[in-house]
Amino acid sequence: MATKGKKTLKSITLVVSKGTMDMAYPPLMIATGAAAMGAEVNIFFTFYGINLIKKDGIDKLQISPVGKPDMPKPDFSPFPVPNIVSMLPGMTAMATSMMKKKIKDTGIMSLEDLLKSAQEMGVKFWACTPTMELMNIKEGDLVDVAGCIGVAGYLDMAADSDINLFI
Amino acid sequence: MATKGKKTLKSITLVVSKGTMDMAYPPLMIATGAAAMGAEVNIFFTFYGINLIKKDGIDKLQISPVGKPDMPKPDFSPFPVPNIVSMLPGMTAMATSMMKKKIKDTGIMSLEDLLKSAQEMGVKFWACTPTMELMNIKEGDLVDVAGCIGVAGYLDMAADSDINLFI
Amino acid sequence: MATKGKKTLKSITLVVSKGTMDMAYPPLMIATGAAAMGAEVNIFFTFYGINLIKKDGIDKLQISPVGKPDMPKPDFSPFPVPNIVSMLPGMTAMATSMMKKKIKDTGIMSLEDLLKSAQEMGVKFWACTPTMELMNIKEGDLVDVAGCIGVAGYLDMAADSDINLFI
Repeated sequence: MATKGKKTLKSITLVVSKGTMDMAYPPLMIATGAAAMGAEVNIFFTFYGINLIKKDGIDKLQISPVGKPDMPKPDFSPFPVPNIVSMLPGMTAMATSMMKKKIKDTGIMSLEDLLKSAQEMGVKFWACTPTMELMNIKEGDLVDVAGCIGVAGYLDMAADSDINLFI
Repeated sequence: MATKGKKTLKSITLVVSKGTMDMAYPPLMIATGAAAMGAEVNIFFTFYGINLIKKDGIDKLQISPVGKPDMPKPDFSPFPVPNIVSMLPGMTAMATSMMKKKIKDTGIMSLEDLLKSAQEMGVKFWACTPTMELMNIKEGDLVDVAGCIGVAGYLDMAADSDINLFI
Repeated sequence: MATKGKKTLKSITLVVSKGTMDMAYPPLMIATGAAAMGAEVNIFFTFYGINLIKKDGIDKLQISPVGKPDMPKPDFSPFPVPNIVSMLPGMTAMATSMMKKKIKDTGIMSLEDLLKSAQEMGVKFWACTPTMELMNIKEGDLVDVAGCIGVAGYLDMAADSDINLFI
């Protein structure tokens, strides 16, 4: 192991700005991992990231294969799928359901379960107020959040954190 | 509020690597927010991010709906726009102007005004020299910058910062 | 220069989550730059980022112009390439080879050489175990890594770092 355990993780603050299925995993896995280590965890959901905390929203997140040459090729195909095929109707849904199946087969939690685990472990969710105004989202549209805050509120939390990440 | 105000934000350093209209907002909103709190703010513009500080460039930033299932659906449509429609000529311009209109209607500053505010508030802009060489950009092509530096210069600033984010 | 050299960079930990050619440069340039300054550098390769450390994999990374209005326009064209052209078969390969040529002409190292330099300079590579399970990757499929670890292992390293970035 790389670490000599010199410093214990006390707090971590994440900014979540992406709302696709694949990019929803890293913040939730990091958040639940940090909470399991006893750290205070705050997540500031901004821009497309706010989709993760819409009521029943996280199960609707999708992933599009278009313009993403770094996505693993689908199991049914010996070759990566070219963009001209990826952009056909139905391919976003197909990529999404294939990734969901792979995740399930691997025994990794669904996003819905990860989000619930995070809440049960005390991870605090913060919604970005300018984003809510821009996308016409009310607090009632969201899962339980610790509060709705602006950039200043985020910066106050981040200044006090051992680890800050923008995802 | 989550924070107990234990630590005051003294300095923040951002890396800006994206050059799309949507991803230009987070760094500029965080930068002006931090400057308003009295922090020293440095931004290192690298890769596509350098487009934000090209003279008259920030108003030309665009947003493409292709391959982005996390973008809010347009107001005129009851459904998200499929990729096969999004990739038609004119759709990038349409998505860009729709997002601009929404931002204006919400009372959020334009990117141009945010960039000027940041400069007036003393946020320091640093251009990445390898990126300038790669994209054949001269210092004269850029808005006023504090300097053109490489990775070592960035790391020197970041080592001294309370918050570091890669955007 | 912005920095007053108050603090020396002792350690930096990067999360690499993207597997495209363009987004492979920032972490490797930052990592080698930090190593050259004598810092301890750890990189945690997760999600698509794991493609960077597949054996012979880094030279196969691609870049797609579809849905990326922030990419520089190709030299042969006076205008940015519209999505309807970018998604034609062969355009991903063309964009990749054009970017590679530009990088070579500028005298910037290839990704393969950067990766080797990082290893020679003592940068430690860590593979994300849930990603390996998800993408069915064995340790033997990877270049020499310091180890395969989960989120807790990453957080231990990150808690001790002066700079943390999620790329």
